Amino acid sequence: MDSDYGVPRELSEVQKTRTLYQPELPPCLQGTTVRVEYGDAAIAADPAGAHVISHAFPHTYGQPIAHFLRKTAVVPDAKVISEHPAVRVGIVFCGRQSPGGHNVVWGLYDAIKAHNQNSKLIGFLGGSDGLLAQKTLEITDEVLSSYKNQGGYDMLGRTKDQIRTTEQVNGAMASCQALKLDALVIIGGVTSNTDAAQLAETFAEAKCPTKVIGVPVTLNGDLKNQFVETTVGFDTICKVNSQLISNMCTDALSAEKYYYFIRLMGRKASHVALECALQSHPNMVILGEEVAASKLTIFDITKQICDAVQARAEKDKNHGVVLIPEGLVESIPELYALLQEIHGLHGKGVSIENISSQLSPWASALFEFLPPFIRKQLLLHPESDDSAQLSQIETEKLLAQLVETEMNRRLKEGTYKGKKFNAICHFFGYQARGALPSKFDCDYAYVLGHVCYHIMAAGLNGYMATVTNLKSPVNKWRCGAAPISSMMTVKRWSRGPSVAQIGKPAVHMASVDLKGKAYELLRQNSSSFLLEDIYRNPGPLQFEGPGADSKPISLCVEDQDYMGRIKKLQEYLEKVKSIVKPGCSQDILKAALSSMSSVTETLTIMSSSSAGQTQP
Amino acid sequence: MDSDYGVPRELSEVQKTRTLYQPELPPCLQGTTVRVEYGDAAIAADPAGAHVISHAFPHTYGQPIAHFLRKTAVVPDAKVISEHPAVRVGIVFCGRQSPGGHNVVWGLYDAIKAHNQNSKLIGFLGGSDGLLAQKTLEITDEVLSSYKNQGGYDMLGRTKDQIRTTEQVNGAMASCQALKLDALVIIGGVTSNTDAAQLAETFAEAKCPTKVIGVPVTLNGDLKNQFVETTVGFDTICKVNSQLISNMCTDALSAEKYYYFIRLMGRKASHVALECALQSHPNMVILGEEVAASKLTIFDITKQICDAVQARAEKDKNHGVVLIPEGLVESIPELYALLQEIHGLHGKGVSIENISSQLSPWASALFEFLPPFIRKQLLLHPESDDSAQLSQIETEKLLAQLVETEMNRRLKEGTYKGKKFNAICHFFGYQARGALPSKFDCDYAYVLGHVCYHIMAAGLNGYMATVTNLKSPVNKWRCGAAPISSMMTVKRWSRGPSVAQIGKPAVHMASVDLKGKAYELLRQNSSSFLLEDIYRNPGPLQFEGPGADSKPISLCVEDQDYMGRIKKLQEYLEKVKSIVKPGCSQDILKAALSSMSSVTETLTIMSSSSAGQTQP
Repeated sequence: MDSDYGVPRELSEVQKTRTLYQPELPPCLQGTTVRVEYGDAAIAADPAGAHVISHAFPHTYGQPIAHFLRKTAVVPDAKVISEHPAVRVGIVFCGRQSPGGHNVVWGLYDAIKAHNQNSKLIGFLGGSDGLLAQKTLEITDEVLSSYKNQGGYDMLGRTKDQIRTTEQVNGAMASCQALKLDALVIIGGVTSNTDAAQLAETFAEAKCPTKVIGVPVTLNGDLKNQFVETTVGFDTICKVNSQLISNMCTDALSAEKYYYFIRLMGRKASHVALECALQSHPNMVILGEEVAASKLTIFDITKQICDAVQARAEKDKNHGVVLIPEGLVESIPELYALLQEIHGLHGKGVSIENISSQLSPWASALFEFLPPFIRKQLLLHPESDDSAQLSQIETEKLLAQLVETEMNRRLKEGTYKGKKFNAICHFFGYQARGALPSKFDCDYAYVLGHVCYHIMAAGLNGYMATVTNLKSPVNKWRCGAAPISSMMTVKRWSRGPSVAQIGKPAVHMASVDLKGKAYELLRQNSSSFLLEDIYRNPGPLQFEGPGADSKPISLCVEDQDYMGRIKKLQEYLEKVKSIVKPGCSQDILKAALSSMSSVTETLTIMSSSSAGQTQP
Repeated sequence: MDSDYGVPRELSEVQKTRTLYQPELPPCLQGTTVRVEYGDAAIAADPAGAHVISHAFPHTYGQPIAHFLRKTAVVPDAKVISEHPAVRVGIVFCGRQSPGGHNVVWGLYDAIKAHNQNSKLIGFLGGSDGLLAQKTLEITDEVLSSYKNQGGYDMLGRTKDQIRTTEQVNGAMASCQALKLDALVIIGGVTSNTDAAQLAETFAEAKCPTKVIGVPVTLNGDLKNQFVETTVGFDTICKVNSQLISNMCTDALSAEKYYYFIRLMGRKASHVALECALQSHPNMVILGEEVAASKLTIFDITKQICDAVQARAEKDKNHGVVLIPEGLVESIPELYALLQEIHGLHGKGVSIENISSQLSPWASALFEFLPPFIRKQLLLHPESDDSAQLSQIETEKLLAQLVETEMNRRLKEGTYKGKKFNAICHFFGYQARGALPSKFDCDYAYVLGHVCYHIMAAGLNGYMATVTNLKSPVNKWRCGAAPISSMMTVKRWSRGPSVAQIGKPAVHMASVDLKGKAYELLRQNSSSFLLEDIYRNPGPLQFEGPGADSKPISLCVEDQDYMGRIKKLQEYLEKVKSIVKPGCSQDILKAALSSMSSVTETLTIMSSSSAGQTQP
C-alpha cells in the first residue's frame, strides 16, 4: 500500500514551475535565530466553559500564548532560543485533504534542517493508520522535490480521521516513544486539532516527552477563532469553485434557459459558499446560518427561490445560478430533526430497511413526502462525528425538484407567466480538493510549517501554530502559537426544563458570523446579485500576473489581527508602567489612576455581560 | 430580453487583464493589403458523395480553395484586393456557446474597421432567433470593451441551433436584404456550418448579394477535416476539464478509497475525452469510437472496468479515475438500437408513458433490465438533430452501478479479494463552457475573425474561414478559406439487401481517428495509465508564464497542415513547368515525362482504390 508514497512523478509544465516557487518568510522567521515572547495565559473565549476545559486539560490549559519575533526585536522579556540540538519530528495528515498540506511538511523540513542538519523529519504513511502502525517515510529533499506547492496529500496519504479512543491515543504514544519523537505535528481541521490537544494532554500526563503541535489545515475554512484567521486550503477551494461557478453564470447568461443549482462542499458551515458568492456574484446563495437563524423550513426556502425565479422572469430573465452549501440540510430545522431521529435509530442498531417504520409520526410524514432519492441518502450511516454524510445528500436536487413543482403549479394557476422552469444540478467538491494550491495557501502553509519548528524548539506542548495579519503582505505577517485548549468550547443542550447536558470540550467549527463584515457585504449586494446578473469571473487560479496574489475576500474585509492587538495592548500596559514609575509626579500618578480606574470599570462590565450570554 | 446584451459589466482583476491582451496576427494578415491566391477547385473528400453534393449545391460546390498571402508574397497569380468600400456585415452565434466565440467578433470588427472606418458590423441578438427577427446590436469599441478574450456568448446571446426549414432560410434572407448586408458570418459547429452552406447556396440561387461565411467554433472539437485542424473552444474546454480531472486523480490518490467516474461533454465524438486523457493520465478512458469499432456491449464494458478494478486491487490500489465521453451511450450497439426504437416511437407521436409498452421484445427486455433513473433519461425527446439528449443521460452512473453489482458478486464469490468498490460520479460539461478562453483559443478566434473579412473582400460565398499549421507559432499560421460544401459527406444506410438510403449532404462530425497519432499515443500509454497512477496535472488554465502557450496534445501530435501541403504541391508543379519550358533540353524533357508518368500512375491507382472504400 505504501510503495507509491513519496515517489517522484511526472509533472506538467505548470506543476514543474510550481515546484520552483519559493515562498517568502516573514521577517520574524528569517535567519536561524528567533526569539519567543510569552503573553498572558490564554483563556477560553467562552468563560462559562473554562472550568470544564481546565478540568479536562489540567496540564495544557492556561498556558500563555507565544509570539515569535526576529532576533533584533527590542522586547526585553523575549527569550532567544539558542540551542538547537538534533531532533526527531513526526508529521501526519489527518482528515480530508486540503490544498497546501504538502507545504506544511516542506516548511517544517526547511526549518528543521536550517537549525540542525542532523535533525530528522519523519512522515507517517496513510494518516492516523500509519501513526498507529509506525509506517513511516523519512522526508528528504528528494521526497519533497515533486510535492512542493502541489495539491493533495498523496506524498504521505491519509486514511482515518480520528485519534480518539484510549486505544488509539495509547497507540499514538507508543509510536512516538518507539520512534523517539521530540514532536508530533498533526495537520488537520477542527476534529484533528481536538485530537491533537487530547494527545498533548495525555502525553504530558504520562510524561511522554513528545510535544504535540496542531496546524489549521482544512478546506472548509471552519477552524476560525481569535487566534486563527483562516485555514490552509480554503483560499484554493474557493478560487477553484468560484471559477467554475462563474463559468456557470456566463453559461446561464449565454444560453438563457437554465437555472443551475450548485451544492458546495464545506461541511456544516457555509464559509465556502459565502466566499464563492462574494467572488462570483451568483443570483442567490442560501447560507445554512441564515436558515438556522430564521428557522426557515424547506418550504420557506422553496418559496424564497420560487419568488426569486418569478421576479427574474418578470425582467425576462429565465436563467440563474443558486448556491447551496452542503451543510444546508442540517440547518433546516425539520430535516435536522429527521436526521437526528434516523441517526438515533442507527445508534440503536436498527437496520436501514426498518428505520422508516420506526420514525415518529411527524418524522415519518416528512420522510414519506420526500422524493425517493433523498430518502435513501438521508438513511445513510452518519459520519464518525455524528453529522450526516453531507457530501452524499443531494439537497440541491431536492430544492430544484420542489421549486420545479411549485413553479409548474404557479404556471398552471396563472400566477407565474414566465417560461417553464428548468434546473440543472451540480455538486462542486471533489474536483477542487486535489487542486494545485494558490500562492496564498502555499505561503501560509509553508510559514506554518516553520512556526511548528519554533513551537517545538520553545518546548511548547498542545499548541497550534498561528500566522496572523494574513490580509497584509507576507512581510507583515505575525507568527505565534496558542494553546489549542483555549480555542475549545463546551456545548450544552437543554433536555427538558431543568436538565442540561454538557458535551466534551472540543474545537468546534465556527459558523459564518451573521454580524460579520463578509456577510454584511453579501447582504448589501444581494438584491443586485439577484436581479441584475452582475456576474464576475475571478478566472482560473493564476500563479503569475494579476490576480495571482489575491486572497479570500471574506478574510480581507474582516477586521482581524487579534494576536497583533493582544501584543499592542501589552505594549500599552508596559508603557504606562514605564511612565508611572516610583518617582514620577503626583499629577501623572493621579491621571493614570483615574483613567485606569475608568478603563477597568468599563471592561469589567463588558466581560460580565458577555459571560452571561449563552454559547451558540 | 435583449436589454442586457453588450452592456459593460464589472470585471475581476484577471478578466480586466484579459481584456488588455492583444492577439497577434500572422504575417499574411498584417497591414491593410492582403493578396488572395486561388488553388484548384475543392472536391469532396468522399468521391462517392461528390455527385450528390454537386447536385445539391450547384452554385457553391466546386469553388477553388483560397490562400491569403502577405502583400509582398512572390506569387505571380495572387490578386491584391485593393478596393475596400464601406461594407455592412452581420454576425450571429449559432448553437452551444464555446469559449473564444467573442474573439471572432472582435477580430472581424478590427479587420473591417482597419480597411474602412465607415463599414459596420452588426451583431444579431439571441442567435438565429435574432437573425430571423432582425434584432440587432451594432458592434462598437464600447460594446467590445468588456468582452475581448472573455468566455460565453453573452455579448450577443444565442438561442436556437438551426436555420434549416424553408421558412427559416427565407427569413434569414429577408433579414440580410432588409439590413443590406454584404456578408453574414455564422459562428458554430457542424450543424451551423451545414446551415451556412445551405444559406449560401439559396442566396446565390436567389441572387441575394449577401455572402455567407462559416467559422468553426465548437467545444466538441468534432468539426475537423482536411481544411480544419481544430475548432475554437476545444482547447479551453479540454484544459478546464483536464484541470478538474487531474484534481480528481490527486484526490483519489490521497483518499485511496473512491473510483471517480467522470462523464465529459463533447457530443457523440470522443475528442474531448481523448485530449483530456492525454493531458491528465487518468486510469481509464472509454472512447465511443473504440466501443463502436469493437462492437462492445454494455456488459463487455462493465467487465473491462471490473477487470481493471480487480487488477488494481491486486496492487493494493482501491481508487481510480475513469473517463466516459457523453456520446458513449450512442456507441454501445444495443443501447443505440434501443434509443433508435424510442426515437422512432417519439416520431410517431407515442407519449412517453406508452413508449415502454410498444418496444420490440428484445428492446423491452433491455429496457426493463436498466435501472429506473436511466430509463427515464433514455425516454427523453431526442434533440433537433435526432441524437439523444446526451448531456442528460447519466451513462457514468449506469456503468458505476453495473460495476458495483459485478464487483460485489465477485467479492461474494471470492474471485475478488480487494476492498468494497466505491464509486462517485461526475458530469463535467456546463462548468467549462463559460470559461475564459485559453490564449490559443483567443488567438485562433481573433485570426479567424480577420480571415472572415478577407473572404468577404474577395467576394467568396459559402466558404469557411480556415487557419492552419496551428501547432506552430502564430507567425507560421496559414490563412485561407475552403468551400463548406467540399467538407460535406453523404451518409448511406443499408435497408435490407439491395436498398440503400442516402442522406442529405452535410458537414458531419468527425470521429476520433483510431489510426491517428493521438489515439496511438493513448494506446501506447494505456497500460501504465491503468496500473501505475502516473497522474499528471496540467494545472488551472494559465494566461502568463509557463503553460500559458500550450496547445492541445492531440493537435500537436497529428501531422496535419493539409492546406500547407496543397500549396507546396502547387509550387512543385509550377517549378516543373518553369524548368521544362519550350526550349529546354531534350534530356530534361524526357526525364520530366518519365517521372511525371510514374507519379500520375501511382496516384491514379491510389485514388481509385480509396474511392472504392465505403464512408464511415
